[in-house]
Amino acid sequence: MIPRYSRPEMVAVWSPETKFRIWYEIEAHACDAMADLGVIPRENAEAVWKAKDVEFDVARIDEIEAVTKHDVIAFLTHLAEHVGSDEARFVHQGMTSSDVLDTCFNVQLTRAADILISDLEGLLAALKRRAYEHKDTVRIGRSHGIHAEPTTMGLTFARFYAEMDRNLSRMRDARAEIATGAISGAVGTFANIDPRVEEHVCEKLGLVPEPISTQVIPRDRHAAFFATLGVIASSIENIAIEIRHMQRTEVLEAEEFFSKGQKGSSAMPHKRNPVLTENLTGLARLVRMTVIPAMENVALWHERDISHSSVERNIGPDATVTLDFALSRLTGVIDKLVVYPDNMLANMNKFRGLVMSQRVLLALTQAGVSRENAYRLVQRNAMKVWEEGKDFKTELLADSDVTAALSKEEIEEKFDLGYHTKHVDTIFERVFGE
Amino acid sequence: MIPRYSRPEMVAVWSPETKFRIWYEIEAHACDAMADLGVIPRENAEAVWKAKDVEFDVARIDEIEAVTKHDVIAFLTHLAEHVGSDEARFVHQGMTSSDVLDTCFNVQLTRAADILISDLEGLLAALKRRAYEHKDTVRIGRSHGIHAEPTTMGLTFARFYAEMDRNLSRMRDARAEIATGAISGAVGTFANIDPRVEEHVCEKLGLVPEPISTQVIPRDRHAAFFATLGVIASSIENIAIEIRHMQRTEVLEAEEFFSKGQKGSSAMPHKRNPVLTENLTGLARLVRMTVIPAMENVALWHERDISHSSVERNIGPDATVTLDFALSRLTGVIDKLVVYPDNMLANMNKFRGLVMSQRVLLALTQAGVSRENAYRLVQRNAMKVWEEGKDFKTELLADSDVTAALSKEEIEEKFDLGYHTKHVDTIFERVFGE
Amino acid sequence: MIPRYSRPEMVAVWSPETKFRIWYEIEAHACDAMADLGVIPRENAEAVWKAKDVEFDVARIDEIEAVTKHDVIAFLTHLAEHVGSDEARFVHQGMTSSDVLDTCFNVQLTRAADILISDLEGLLAALKRRAYEHKDTVRIGRSHGIHAEPTTMGLTFARFYAEMDRNLSRMRDARAEIATGAISGAVGTFANIDPRVEEHVCEKLGLVPEPISTQVIPRDRHAAFFATLGVIASSIENIAIEIRHMQRTEVLEAEEFFSKGQKGSSAMPHKRNPVLTENLTGLARLVRMTVIPAMENVALWHERDISHSSVERNIGPDATVTLDFALSRLTGVIDKLVVYPDNMLANMNKFRGLVMSQRVLLALTQAGVSRENAYRLVQRNAMKVWEEGKDFKTELLADSDVTAALSKEEIEEKFDLGYHTKHVDTIFERVFGE
Amino acid sequence: MIPRYSRPEMVAVWSPETKFRIWYEIEAHACDAMADLGVIPRENAEAVWKAKDVEFDVARIDEIEAVTKHDVIAFLTHLAEHVGSDEARFVHQGMTSSDVLDTCFNVQLTRAADILISDLEGLLAALKRRAYEHKDTVRIGRSHGIHAEPTTMGLTFARFYAEMDRNLSRMRDARAEIATGAISGAVGTFANIDPRVEEHVCEKLGLVPEPISTQVIPRDRHAAFFATLGVIASSIENIAIEIRHMQRTEVLEAEEFFSKGQKGSSAMPHKRNPVLTENLTGLARLVRMTVIPAMENVALWHERDISHSSVERNIGPDATVTLDFALSRLTGVIDKLVVYPDNMLANMNKFRGLVMSQRVLLALTQAGVSRENAYRLVQRNAMKVWEEGKDFKTELLADSDVTAALSKEEIEEKFDLGYHTKHVDTIFERVFGE
Repeated sequence: MIPRYSRPEMVAVWSPETKFRIWYEIEAHACDAMADLGVIPRENAEAVWKAKDVEFDVARIDEIEAVTKHDVIAFLTHLAEHVGSDEARFVHQGMTSSDVLDTCFNVQLTRAADILISDLEGLLAALKRRAYEHKDTVRIGRSHGIHAEPTTMGLTFARFYAEMDRNLSRMRDARAEIATGAISGAVGTFANIDPRVEEHVCEKLGLVPEPISTQVIPRDRHAAFFATLGVIASSIENIAIEIRHMQRTEVLEAEEFFSKGQKGSSAMPHKRNPVLTENLTGLARLVRMTVIPAMENVALWHERDISHSSVERNIGPDATVTLDFALSRLTGVIDKLVVYPDNMLANMNKFRGLVMSQRVLLALTQAGVSRENAYRLVQRNAMKVWEEGKDFKTELLADSDVTAALSKEEIEEKFDLGYHTKHVDTIFERVFGE
Repeated sequence: MIPRYSRPEMVAVWSPETKFRIWYEIEAHACDAMADLGVIPRENAEAVWKAKDVEFDVARIDEIEAVTKHDVIAFLTHLAEHVGSDEARFVHQGMTSSDVLDTCFNVQLTRAADILISDLEGLLAALKRRAYEHKDTVRIGRSHGIHAEPTTMGLTFARFYAEMDRNLSRMRDARAEIATGAISGAVGTFANIDPRVEEHVCEKLGLVPEPISTQVIPRDRHAAFFATLGVIASSIENIAIEIRHMQRTEVLEAEEFFSKGQKGSSAMPHKRNPVLTENLTGLARLVRMTVIPAMENVALWHERDISHSSVERNIGPDATVTLDFALSRLTGVIDKLVVYPDNMLANMNKFRGLVMSQRVLLALTQAGVSRENAYRLVQRNAMKVWEEGKDFKTELLADSDVTAALSKEEIEEKFDLGYHTKHVDTIFERVFGE
Repeated sequence: MIPRYSRPEMVAVWSPETKFRIWYEIEAHACDAMADLGVIPRENAEAVWKAKDVEFDVARIDEIEAVTKHDVIAFLTHLAEHVGSDEARFVHQGMTSSDVLDTCFNVQLTRAADILISDLEGLLAALKRRAYEHKDTVRIGRSHGIHAEPTTMGLTFARFYAEMDRNLSRMRDARAEIATGAISGAVGTFANIDPRVEEHVCEKLGLVPEPISTQVIPRDRHAAFFATLGVIASSIENIAIEIRHMQRTEVLEAEEFFSKGQKGSSAMPHKRNPVLTENLTGLARLVRMTVIPAMENVALWHERDISHSSVERNIGPDATVTLDFALSRLTGVIDKLVVYPDNMLANMNKFRGLVMSQRVLLALTQAGVSRENAYRLVQRNAMKVWEEGKDFKTELLADSDVTAALSKEEIEEKFDLGYHTKHVDTIFERVFGE
Repeated sequence: MIPRYSRPEMVAVWSPETKFRIWYEIEAHACDAMADLGVIPRENAEAVWKAKDVEFDVARIDEIEAVTKHDVIAFLTHLAEHVGSDEARFVHQGMTSSDVLDTCFNVQLTRAADILISDLEGLLAALKRRAYEHKDTVRIGRSHGIHAEPTTMGLTFARFYAEMDRNLSRMRDARAEIATGAISGAVGTFANIDPRVEEHVCEKLGLVPEPISTQVIPRDRHAAFFATLGVIASSIENIAIEIRHMQRTEVLEAEEFFSKGQKGSSAMPHKRNPVLTENLTGLARLVRMTVIPAMENVALWHERDISHSSVERNIGPDATVTLDFALSRLTGVIDKLVVYPDNMLANMNKFRGLVMSQRVLLALTQAGVSRENAYRLVQRNAMKVWEEGKDFKTELLADSDVTAALSKEEIEEKFDLGYHTKHVDTIFERVFGE
């Protein structure tokens, strides 16, 4: 987690204070449930809530952990300092450390997911606004980086919207995957704790009880969660690459917003570099790199080994903080992206009509020319444009084999941009459902 | 794709014959739709179906491709050889190669998904059967590879069932993700082809029209698909590791079925090696390695570049063929796994009752001993077992500090195995819902 | 391994025929050594060489393996069919299957490395030739995809040369890493076989004896090997991306060679797509994806488990075949790349001198203007070029604050291209050492 | 970077203070070189050294960066606050930010490499000591987790030594790869700065000039560096897995040192969990996950894009800090590992001589029994041991087909452990060269 690529709300999810607060709630709710079941005295359960408004002292807990070398015991010891060691003696009864750690981790991941869902919603709003704004802004579509046929900037935004909308749906699924808790004891048999304690704690924390756990919650859930973050990061990269291409000097169809005070380069003051989207490209790699270790974490030995723990201490915060930052940054980029419709038209016309060759080819075929011949006719005129700088339409009109098949009006019509944008509304309706 | 780790049904999904058959159906259905719309003559559409029962000649198509260096053109040329070049002249009209290639790829992935779903259902049936068979077969639960508390072999199978059941659900989602088609032309604008052609073709092929495509179907769908395969592979590794541990000489709680003719080793005839599950561990790595390239494929340039293609030619077949084989192999392993309940009991008793220490600790606490003191009492008796080979229960009964808190009967009761299995039915009900 | 991305020489390294031939040589040389040591009769060692010119029958060996389920035993059985079962009875004595398998695998990797080394040498020759050819072909250097300062096409080729030269050196190291053999028995103790047998076999096969093996050769060697392939693949991607950028419509500073018969697209005949370098981008991902599983293979259980085997059956051939093909394809691309110097100049002048702003900034500073002021002076003139399409030099000459610091001649001199290329020879000398 | 998995010396390499100090040295040495060349006044170069003992104010630099949004400009502005803005006006002349950033990054990586080299040397010393200590401590070798033939604990340590010794060599190579600097200006042409400045700065910082750079140092160097860290991490995992296996309850051939105050589990006081090596398993994944992004960083656009930067801000510190911690932790584990030779013997004898079957098989063959028959003889007696708990030697002595081929003395001799350890000295000599 790098401070410059972090936002406070997500960082707070992963603070020691938040963690200890969640641990506390798990323990306190568990005591309530045990008291309800008559397993521990009601007054001991109530005593735990005395610490309800306490901000736990992270430094003190660390100090105890330095001796006990066990984080949950350290916390419980500290809790007893607040509640009273006698009153606190039933806290954690029948539970194992992982009941607290794993349930807490899933609460944190669920909260992180909520922030990411909100981020995605914000991004979608920006993409939709820009899509409608540029619904009819014509630009050249490119395959292989080469001009193909016209499309519109609105369609570009719309496809990013559709992709991010799928990501929103995936993120919601990932949240549901991870919103489970387990209070099932040392090997998951509930030998020392009633399953109803788990049910109560989960309900209070907004989780679903894990149907079957061992000492830990099964890690396939986490693997699926981080895989989802990896897919979203890849979509961010997808948008970032598009913008970086649009901003490159020779294309210049759009630019990241360039604030007044900002200096693009220490040496070349005129440069406006797409540094935000380049940065997003790198951040995408950082999120994506967490997918494989999350998958390697699935195969724990027997009822658990602790190899996953150090991995998750890192990728839990890092992947979610980085993705939150990236989504927020991307939303800002989309929101303020400076679009240059004139440059789009100028680029499209770079090869004097050549991008219409597909239509001409089709028209020739429909006019009865064989596919092979039509291809040759188009190709020979296209090559004159490409190699000699001629105008495609002019050449076609001067080619008697072409005019034998198509009238002047028919040829002219092939160069009408409206032809290419006629289904934009249909596509928008599919994407935005309106 | 390695022949020895392949099964014919999945291999067939990826054969050139299957591919060309799907291409043919896409083209033929597209012609039907265009005829319905009055775009091309009805008789030309009908003519295409003349090839309905043709097995396309892969060698001939390869031969044409060697000249044209374009696979779809090669196929269309060959198709015309069957249909007649005049009759075939409207085939592919207004379409781009990717309309065929991408729609076909998703048909193949969807069929692959169907096989994988069926594989998972088979695996689930085996896991469920073995879970009920060993519902009450007690074995020691282990955390960190160290004995913890008793559990049952049935719970082990049941948790693998629950994990694979989640994978089945993920696989169904992944299938839905990928079951889309696109016939939208060179840059996805439908400039040269009516969106109703796409609708018709998709319906005939069991797909949903991609709401917005460029020249290609967006690759976040594929990234999510392969990520799902990666999660499933990781779960396979999880089960494989458990069995490998169970079969190791010192544990020997289970063995892969060992057929009569099989030789375990050329040099050590007595050895029965868990080679199937070791193999599954490796196969899991092979499936998992496809996740990152699938994610790297998402960020294509503008309306498409073709960098994803070589990746998918490999990982499409390889990941699905390998995962199909692995699921099938794992099902066989589970189905025939030889379980040794006696060895389970013998292992559990290796440290003469020590695994019951948690219960004793709890009982002491409940009897009013402070947490710290209870811990110390248990620890000092446990250490005698550990270091001097004493029996835990005997030591406890001889420790006056312990017997001051707990009666003989209370101590005896702590060593009852039924205590640990009392919630097995509850968990089974959660997992199997019956 | 995909046939279309394969070359026969590398494919042959991985054929069953090659493998069995190597197995045969290992066994035969081992018999020789054992005869030298008096462990087995000389005539039995000699008898094995009766099969020297035999092409082993792969189908027959597969048939035997179907029964024995063990590949080395199947081979030995087949070998005995050639040599005579009595004569062959000392073959493989004291050895374990892995002695054969692992040593063979390293022979194959070593041969693969030799081909890759040769590929790299071929690529370097092409890069060097093109570097000298375009040593003085000026083009604009770009950072962030934005014009920065002039450089030359020769420097671009030269830096790719330097990078690939480092890769050649890495590949040689990787070859040395992997050129070891082990004939050390079931757990590596040489209990049943004299270490001198290993020495003899290794010497005959061009290997070094593994100083300490278990049942297998340690897999850190292989991890380092595949990591090297991954680095080389990443460099291929680096070059591929550069060419793809150069070929994009708006840049068009170079194009992949476009053969006459080739059709760029079924629909847009004018398009010349950089399909080879796009393909290389994908192939790079395929090679790179093998790095992590190779690293996951390192941690085998105790003296070996067989989890690495299925992984290596795949990545051994796939990574080397793909990389060989990619290097060869890249060499062809470099060799025949069509370079457009005129377009390079036209692109450089797109912003009428703006790329010289760095020099002007420096000159102002050297003339005594404070850094802050110089920056502001350059920036205000640059913005006129950027936003109003003015010529940079003209604007500077008209800016009295600038001319107060710099004379007309001094300003003119800042736009001399020779200034930027003056150290090209120095750099070439560093790179090519001549 | 997680504090609990960090050591101060390595953390310090990555502190802002260290970074700014290196930036300062680069700038100051560059000024010296420029003064030597007569490019800037000597007094301005000397003035920069006024700040020689300054501890740069990180908070102040951050404050400036918040305005300029450019870290190097912020630093230079702050430096001018110390040196005087007039005196400082030649600082950074002709350089680009990356000259400073990239050279600094390589200085940091080089220092990190030095620490890692030292870590590896420490680990090697521990492994060597333990290897000699347990050179003759017999334990059973295992393949597939199944007993094979005897080996010694010393050989286990020795093979880890050999593996880590290779890693030391790789780490030294990686250090050499990364110990380059570049002061070559905006696109690497030295247009505005003399190559001799680069030479001087590199010499002063212990680096080699990068033969050809663009705006940045080529990232294949970094990819190779991080790949090396990934290989080393995989070797750490290899050792960690071995120890985890040795410590598992049923094996118990070794244990991590267990300090008196430490509590293994909050619930099961008798448990001694191999938490350090489990932790190392996870840390290995964290280091390894940085390899792919480092490789993805190689393909920068043209003379640079900044996508690599955010990746390196993370993986630079994280991978080196984590690996340093892991190596140090592993050294401690090896150093204090508690080894149980008695348990090793007990485990080896679990199957009453069965592990000697390979020797018997060989003896029968040598006595003239055909391979097939010998195999059957051994197998039928082995099965009695396996299935009926018989003693292998006793069974063999009672099998008349066996005794027809081998005398009692010959059979007895096959169960001599010395047979298996006779080449240990030879192997030690190979590994330790003494």
